[in-house]
Amino acid sequence: MINETYKEMLGKKSVIRQLSEFATARGKEIGYENVFDYSLGNPSVPVPEEFTKAMIEMLEQDSPMALHGYSPSLGNPEFKQAVADSLNRRFGMNYKASHIFPTSGAAGAIAHALRAITKPGDEVIVFAPFFPEYIPYVTGTGAEIVVVPADTKAFQINFDKFEELLTNKVKAVLINSPNNPTGAVYTKVGLKEWVDYANANGSVILFDAAYEAFIEDDTLPKSIFEIEGARTCAIEICSLSKTAGFTGTRLGYTVIPKTLERYGMNFNAMWVRNRTTKTNGVSYIIQVGGAAVFTDEGQKQIHENINIYKKNAKVIMEALDAVGIWYCGGKNAPYVWMKCPDGMGSWEFFDYLLENIQVIGTPGEGFGKCGEGYFRFSSFGSPEDTKEAAERIKNLLKK
Amino acid sequence: MINETYKEMLGKKSVIRQLSEFATARGKEIGYENVFDYSLGNPSVPVPEEFTKAMIEMLEQDSPMALHGYSPSLGNPEFKQAVADSLNRRFGMNYKASHIFPTSGAAGAIAHALRAITKPGDEVIVFAPFFPEYIPYVTGTGAEIVVVPADTKAFQINFDKFEELLTNKVKAVLINSPNNPTGAVYTKVGLKEWVDYANANGSVILFDAAYEAFIEDDTLPKSIFEIEGARTCAIEICSLSKTAGFTGTRLGYTVIPKTLERYGMNFNAMWVRNRTTKTNGVSYIIQVGGAAVFTDEGQKQIHENINIYKKNAKVIMEALDAVGIWYCGGKNAPYVWMKCPDGMGSWEFFDYLLENIQVIGTPGEGFGKCGEGYFRFSSFGSPEDTKEAAERIKNLLKK
Repeated sequence: MINETYKEMLGKKSVIRQLSEFATARGKEIGYENVFDYSLGNPSVPVPEEFTKAMIEMLEQDSPMALHGYSPSLGNPEFKQAVADSLNRRFGMNYKASHIFPTSGAAGAIAHALRAITKPGDEVIVFAPFFPEYIPYVTGTGAEIVVVPADTKAFQINFDKFEELLTNKVKAVLINSPNNPTGAVYTKVGLKEWVDYANANGSVILFDAAYEAFIEDDTLPKSIFEIEGARTCAIEICSLSKTAGFTGTRLGYTVIPKTLERYGMNFNAMWVRNRTTKTNGVSYIIQVGGAAVFTDEGQKQIHENINIYKKNAKVIMEALDAVGIWYCGGKNAPYVWMKCPDGMGSWEFFDYLLENIQVIGTPGEGFGKCGEGYFRFSSFGSPEDTKEAAERIKNLLKK
Repeated sequence: MINETYKEMLGKKSVIRQLSEFATARGKEIGYENVFDYSLGNPSVPVPEEFTKAMIEMLEQDSPMALHGYSPSLGNPEFKQAVADSLNRRFGMNYKASHIFPTSGAAGAIAHALRAITKPGDEVIVFAPFFPEYIPYVTGTGAEIVVVPADTKAFQINFDKFEELLTNKVKAVLINSPNNPTGAVYTKVGLKEWVDYANANGSVILFDAAYEAFIEDDTLPKSIFEIEGARTCAIEICSLSKTAGFTGTRLGYTVIPKTLERYGMNFNAMWVRNRTTKTNGVSYIIQVGGAAVFTDEGQKQIHENINIYKKNAKVIMEALDAVGIWYCGGKNAPYVWMKCPDGMGSWEFFDYLLENIQVIGTPGEGFGKCGEGYFRFSSFGSPEDTKEAAERIKNLLKK
């Protein structure tokens, strides 16, 4: 009863990535010069200057010594230390460089972790609606996806049937908070329930924290390690793609506590073995640039950029408020998840916006069955375009 | 009968990567200040200036537009076209950008390809001695390794028992030419036999051409696609690690013909689907720098660097000639593979060199049973150090 059809979503990631292209072509077909594209989580603001400065400095001064030679498979020690220091400052924790594993982005890190944890026949819990990219990562290991749908009133996970999931088949629980697409964020109490579940059931939580930097409500957890008990059940997967505009540059990091023991393995030690035998590490110079965004100045620049996106989200939310449309997200996340007006289907609403006001978002159906009738706007566009698009949405939907 | 014990090699890659560290520590322990390290295939010459120039130009001028935003999952079109143009110039072929897939290095590309091709119970042919990194890639898919040992007279693969391998269990044949560790290079005739085998058996050849740029004998094949019939059975995996000093920068490319059909799939189309659903591509800016090394000026710089390593190999070969020690490789490859003197074991010889002359190489045993009694020198060190080390070897081994 907690499963829903997810097979139809298989491979839909590329559909979402191609939506913009498709819609732009369709817009031209019906005579539009430009479309306002809010379908992608694709930052429009430049990367922090600290990154560019650090990269150029290395290329100009240190190139002969720094660019050749194998980089440590486990990562550039300076990058790892910079991340650990930053987490310690923000969360008052006590991370060491050895808890931090650089990755070329969150997506690959989730896929690698699932491959290390699951085998055919195992089960992985995913909360719907969810980013369809997760599907090939889970099914690629031969494991089954168990979908736990969100309460569609506010797209929170209010789940009280934990006993149904207390089975040794469930090896991993994939939690994305703030959620893509709904922008919903777990409360500490809600997250604690899953931590308790994972510890009781011997499962591993893969906590996808790609959007944690967007949380402004201080009572909400930004890291799963703020929750008691998480250090014995969770891995945290972070990305610089959305926070520092690294979607094309590719860099992220995974935090694995040394107290996580599962299936007869110490996970941190297993990961050290996995990375040293299976990879030659992440591009060294990209890690040099990456370390620079964790300095005070780098963090300041990141948050200036994030504030631009948050203002965009506010502009979209105000437009929806003005025409009385229900939405969630936007406040602690870069996505606004709205109910399509007048009972429209999500693809129907997509066509309606494109054809009437040249605005593109992502149909909720792209994130699975429980996204039907909903629509996602991304706040990663430029402020000018976002204002214009919000104005058009307001004018179109007011009756 | 064509299998040998390979399990003992499991996880040895990290041993090889750590050898230098271990030996340096051991050297200090026995009172040496410096050791001359020839154990790693780790370029010592700076990366081509064209790479650095292209990177800085992008970071300085185009950063706001070029560094943010998802890079195409299938790769930067300019990089793909630069590779295709360069291959077409060199081999008189007719590659298009759509045949070229950027990767973050050859190792990962081989692992991904094996995962796409094999399932538990399948078999993968590997030629011994071989780089132990291959083992976790094969066994990680659940497939079995079938080891075909080289003729130890010249470490060539002279194999005439193809009929034993005509079984539908063999899904892939992993060929590395020039070979690491022996430096042996396939002849066109020898390679044609495996192409015919793969076409007859319905297997895929994964051709690891990481060292092709070191081949100076024009009669030897640098690309498997110089062999008739290869376009219906082979994938070529190349790396810029050794040719352009990208070991720490991470960039390579895989060539997949559109005429390769196996297991009911068109391989090029399967790979497009695989990359677009499973990855967000390789770092965009690294591809911008990578494209620059395929220009005429970039290629000139690469070959100046390669010539430095080839001179190093010559210096080592001359030292071994002077003391009458058998070796192969060195001429068309960056590795010299020697027989240990006086019937010494390969680890015994390792200790002997370290303790007497502070020189480190890689014990042949690290590459499997048939490497016992052999030793690998890398030519990637600095010319000054190489001269000094060769002199010491000559003095130590002359009787």
